[in-house]
Amino acid sequence: MILSALLTSVGINLGLCFLFFTLYSILRKQPGNAYVYAPRLVAEGKLEQRNNFNLDRLLPSTSWVTRSWHPTEQELLMRAGLDGVVFMRIIIFSLKVFAFAGVVGLCALLPINYMGSQIVIDFSDFTNKSLESFSISNVNDGSQRLWVHFAAVYAFTAFVCYLLFVEYRYISSKRLAYYYSSEPKPDQFTVLVRGIPKSTTVSLSASVENFFSEYYPSLYLSHYMVHHTTKIQKLISNADKVNRRLAHLKSTQKTSQRFGHVGFLGIFGRKVDLVEYYEKKLEDLEDNVRTQQSLLSGKEVPAAFVSFKSRLGAAVALHVQQGENPTEWLTERAPEPEDVYWPFFSASFLSRWIGNVVVVFACILLTILFFIPVIIVQGLTNLDQLETWFPFLKGVLNITFVSQVITGYLPSLILKMFLYMVPPVMIMLSSIQGYVAHSQIEKSACNKMLWFTIWNIFFANALSGSVLYRVSIFTEPKEIPNTLAVAVPGQATFFITYVVTSGWTSTVSELLRSMPLISNYMRRIFFTIADEKFEVPSLPYSSEIPNILLFGLLGIAYFFLSPLMLPFLLVYYCLAYIIYRHQLLNVYSPKFETGGTFWPIVHNSTVFSLILMHIIAVGIFGLKKLPLASSLTIPLPIITLLFNNYCRNRFLPVFKGYPAECMIKKDRSDEAMSDFHEKLITAYQDPALKPVHFSGRTDSYNAPLLASET
Amino acid sequence: MILSALLTSVGINLGLCFLFFTLYSILRKQPGNAYVYAPRLVAEGKLEQRNNFNLDRLLPSTSWVTRSWHPTEQELLMRAGLDGVVFMRIIIFSLKVFAFAGVVGLCALLPINYMGSQIVIDFSDFTNKSLESFSISNVNDGSQRLWVHFAAVYAFTAFVCYLLFVEYRYISSKRLAYYYSSEPKPDQFTVLVRGIPKSTTVSLSASVENFFSEYYPSLYLSHYMVHHTTKIQKLISNADKVNRRLAHLKSTQKTSQRFGHVGFLGIFGRKVDLVEYYEKKLEDLEDNVRTQQSLLSGKEVPAAFVSFKSRLGAAVALHVQQGENPTEWLTERAPEPEDVYWPFFSASFLSRWIGNVVVVFACILLTILFFIPVIIVQGLTNLDQLETWFPFLKGVLNITFVSQVITGYLPSLILKMFLYMVPPVMIMLSSIQGYVAHSQIEKSACNKMLWFTIWNIFFANALSGSVLYRVSIFTEPKEIPNTLAVAVPGQATFFITYVVTSGWTSTVSELLRSMPLISNYMRRIFFTIADEKFEVPSLPYSSEIPNILLFGLLGIAYFFLSPLMLPFLLVYYCLAYIIYRHQLLNVYSPKFETGGTFWPIVHNSTVFSLILMHIIAVGIFGLKKLPLASSLTIPLPIITLLFNNYCRNRFLPVFKGYPAECMIKKDRSDEAMSDFHEKLITAYQDPALKPVHFSGRTDSYNAPLLASET
Repeated sequence: MILSALLTSVGINLGLCFLFFTLYSILRKQPGNAYVYAPRLVAEGKLEQRNNFNLDRLLPSTSWVTRSWHPTEQELLMRAGLDGVVFMRIIIFSLKVFAFAGVVGLCALLPINYMGSQIVIDFSDFTNKSLESFSISNVNDGSQRLWVHFAAVYAFTAFVCYLLFVEYRYISSKRLAYYYSSEPKPDQFTVLVRGIPKSTTVSLSASVENFFSEYYPSLYLSHYMVHHTTKIQKLISNADKVNRRLAHLKSTQKTSQRFGHVGFLGIFGRKVDLVEYYEKKLEDLEDNVRTQQSLLSGKEVPAAFVSFKSRLGAAVALHVQQGENPTEWLTERAPEPEDVYWPFFSASFLSRWIGNVVVVFACILLTILFFIPVIIVQGLTNLDQLETWFPFLKGVLNITFVSQVITGYLPSLILKMFLYMVPPVMIMLSSIQGYVAHSQIEKSACNKMLWFTIWNIFFANALSGSVLYRVSIFTEPKEIPNTLAVAVPGQATFFITYVVTSGWTSTVSELLRSMPLISNYMRRIFFTIADEKFEVPSLPYSSEIPNILLFGLLGIAYFFLSPLMLPFLLVYYCLAYIIYRHQLLNVYSPKFETGGTFWPIVHNSTVFSLILMHIIAVGIFGLKKLPLASSLTIPLPIITLLFNNYCRNRFLPVFKGYPAECMIKKDRSDEAMSDFHEKLITAYQDPALKPVHFSGRTDSYNAPLLASET
Repeated sequence: MILSALLTSVGINLGLCFLFFTLYSILRKQPGNAYVYAPRLVAEGKLEQRNNFNLDRLLPSTSWVTRSWHPTEQELLMRAGLDGVVFMRIIIFSLKVFAFAGVVGLCALLPINYMGSQIVIDFSDFTNKSLESFSISNVNDGSQRLWVHFAAVYAFTAFVCYLLFVEYRYISSKRLAYYYSSEPKPDQFTVLVRGIPKSTTVSLSASVENFFSEYYPSLYLSHYMVHHTTKIQKLISNADKVNRRLAHLKSTQKTSQRFGHVGFLGIFGRKVDLVEYYEKKLEDLEDNVRTQQSLLSGKEVPAAFVSFKSRLGAAVALHVQQGENPTEWLTERAPEPEDVYWPFFSASFLSRWIGNVVVVFACILLTILFFIPVIIVQGLTNLDQLETWFPFLKGVLNITFVSQVITGYLPSLILKMFLYMVPPVMIMLSSIQGYVAHSQIEKSACNKMLWFTIWNIFFANALSGSVLYRVSIFTEPKEIPNTLAVAVPGQATFFITYVVTSGWTSTVSELLRSMPLISNYMRRIFFTIADEKFEVPSLPYSSEIPNILLFGLLGIAYFFLSPLMLPFLLVYYCLAYIIYRHQLLNVYSPKFETGGTFWPIVHNSTVFSLILMHIIAVGIFGLKKLPLASSLTIPLPIITLLFNNYCRNRFLPVFKGYPAECMIKKDRSDEAMSDFHEKLITAYQDPALKPVHFSGRTDSYNAPLLASET
């Protein structure tokens, strides 16, 4: 790719960013969009309704930027939870890392690269020169100036490791502080028990009762069996829909809407009073739910939420193996009651084990299938190949602007499109693995997504040169440094455009929330779609964190290869900082609280990036005929791994559980627990098994929605 | 190597075995050798003294074989502990595996190999033919008969996995049964706490007391601080020596021995009454010990044995992270009081972490250094090379018998000699790692020794063909199956001689116990060396288990390549079965009890051997131009790994701790614990800090030794 193509891409994306910013500034002021741009404030009732029209509504403004800049971390913690704070810390950490990298890269490495003459001597494609001359490829072979790069690699690694250590310490102290300051919560007192052995004489519930009241007589409080309730859940959600439609019908005054057809698509069938019809239907559904609920009490899943009277009691049941057979009486941390993922409640050890195996194979398959779009994308960056495939495009492709759009902008856009489809698949796979909480599923999907992204975006694109897909290098470990050193620098411009397209524009479009915006308009145009429940969304960690970490990986890998990427990355992180802060405060509402357990993923990914950089450095110094520097780089990954191992021992245990010291202190500080214990007994009731009472209820979320509609 | 060399080796070793057997049968009857051949019975006072001379004493007999055959597993458990039973189960397991392999190999594979004509067609070295024609190399390329080998690999894997599962289940049930039947033991109620944070206001001991009595008021019983006592230990062992010499002097009647020189080497200096001299010296030493003991109470190590009132209490402290900082208040399972390894009591987290890192590098260095003897050994198997190195040997080497001894017997003997030096080094390395118990050190050394043996005996010998040391294959994973398939079958005869030399002869020489025998004779000849303490030895698991597992690996790897090895292996295992049973009953006395935790090592090693076999099979079928069989073998290692993963989940937790169910049941079954609690408080006292009272004491072990001497 040539410089002008890069500039085209930057130009397009800058334009898009400004457009999105302006659009957002205007759209957010329209009262009808409150559900899109401030759903959280709507749900909390904090948004004042401004229905009176004035000119100010049509002018873009930036007041929201300062508003989202102001809150302190403490306020953020209160509004977005510790997970939100950790999410913002990822961006702050990256900003610090790349501020340092930027200073070193632009002040020391870039001039040295530019002063070299390797590329000019080659008399290769001149149009390419302008970009390549800023990269390490331009430094002359065997030049002593490469020692500056060598020193930069060491200094950068030391700096990042120092920051990683400080940040890990900070977040683990935050986690403990959060625990100390938290109210008594059901999940602190509860464990999930799976693999309850079947007995011929007593029911599963009785066997849980017997086991825990025998072995923990003073600590055991109560238990709640899990049931298969997918069927009832469907019925309830149907009833919910009918109820909402009914409420809408009742609230509307137009009689024309009260009568309608009830057959297929609301077109066929006889015309009836819809209110009567839906009331009848709702009653039927409620009856059905009640019948099913009474039938279900017998059909227990061998899993139960067991609550204890103290946090330490729950910790004992959690950490000490319970039954003699390690595949029975398996205990695990209970999620928060709202966080429980009821549908996939696979209970037996074996079924979960098989689930895990299946998911591993599915992930491998998905990775292989994803090669197809990657190859297409890489085909686009090579126009010649495209012309030989589709000769009839020759005329179009010869227009400069078109070819620049195709080589500069299209590839990363297509990649981005395909990537959008992956997170839901990963979440689906994680749910098959037998996780029982939305938070666990998110975390597992985040991990999967991260490695998928690194492999399919970084490696697949770096290694698939124009010629051939060089996946085979991983079967020859000795060749890895050299292959990477040859392939990675060549893709610098592609990844710069990726940062611009996927980083800048996608982040700004996150602000615009185009999908919810469109669906909101649709809902307002076609009134009847009042079926959709209004829900405050939560930040999709599993797709956002891997994205941010991928940019971190790119920045670390290209820090000494092509420092030109760093300013683009810094702009990205600044944008991300403001936009995600704003979204966390206004749009997203935390659905669960993992207590900052996303941080270890960030730590591992950063250490991986560092080691990748070291491997590339070993290869590059070798290629540049500076074998001493190449050998002297080898201790660096070893030291980094030792550092990582130390951090694992020093910090990770706090993220896997809470220390006895904390739990006992918290247990003692609680007073008058009998109220809480009463609540605890019913905390883990399956929502599908709660008594239904639609007839008389008003939906608290629905109320403001309907009010604004009238 | 040619057939006659193999036969020479088998002949020599058979001769040696018979010689050793006969020698042992005679020597064991001599009363003076009781300390060598039945030290355990001597210590237990079960051996009747037969000093009257008769002819029977000079005739070899085999009655001891039947005597060691008879005891049931229950009796073995009572005499040798669960570790002894597990040790014997390894041999029984191997016998079962190779009985099956032997039947399949000799009845199905061997005839097919022999019917092939690949080697004859080659018209290669004819003397080699006779051995090679029994191996898979002789089967014609692309022959459909190779499907029999393919089926054999599958059937064998299934059989071994089935046996592994059954055995794992059996041993884990044994382990639980052993726990249920055990008396209350101090280590069940105690945890070792390390990383006690230093405080400026209170002493370490007070800080332990505060911490546990605050957080576990109802469970905490007592604690015992660890001190640095290397100096005192040295003084005590000196005093012990002097005391024993004194007792010996007093018991001897000859006045000539009562007076002697006391200077350098007992030659210079004035002549004194030795009894008086030693009594004075002993008193001085005792005073010195007492002064040191009183001085030491201040110098505490930040580690303590903390005892609880119940097993569950100890388990809670063990499994739940205690302090907020995961590198402080680290708890681990306390060893049995006699099992504690006092010298290397590194206490801080950081020092142990550094120790671990150092040991990893030391192991790598040791492995590299060990290449030297391996290369020498491989040089010996190629006489031509030796002749070019040392031309003057040409005349000697041309004598058939000499060349056969050198190529057939010497290599594995030299290898064996070098291997003898490794276990002490491994034990030393393991003790640096910061383990606090002899049992933990043994287990860790066993693991190290196992991988060292597999790498340095199997891989180094298999891969160093005559030509070149092909270590580089591990940098090209794709080539591994092919390289192994080429190299491994060629070394079949070398490994058969290894089984014969190292397996047969070494096992029988284990019976003869040559080193203790010689030292026993020396002691009896030079009376004055009464300094040596008489101690019943314990089975050196760390050198024996890796040895047995290496033969298992050889057998599994060569099962379908060269079934001729299997009969030799079966003979080895039969010998091992009888000899180790005998030694466990008569010679070794268990010093510690790990509760069968050596089994997971055996399981992992067997799974590794299976996967190695599969990789070789993939390569062999490829080389033999049967690509379909090669591809169809690929799922086999994957299935085996899945099986291993299932076993890890199903059985391993029981070997890492005991389930709460067991502990609570045991806690309840204990009655009148106050006596035991009193004992528990002083159980973990450092032997160096116990009051010294040599003047009046008689050594219980020394007593019979001295009685026989008079």
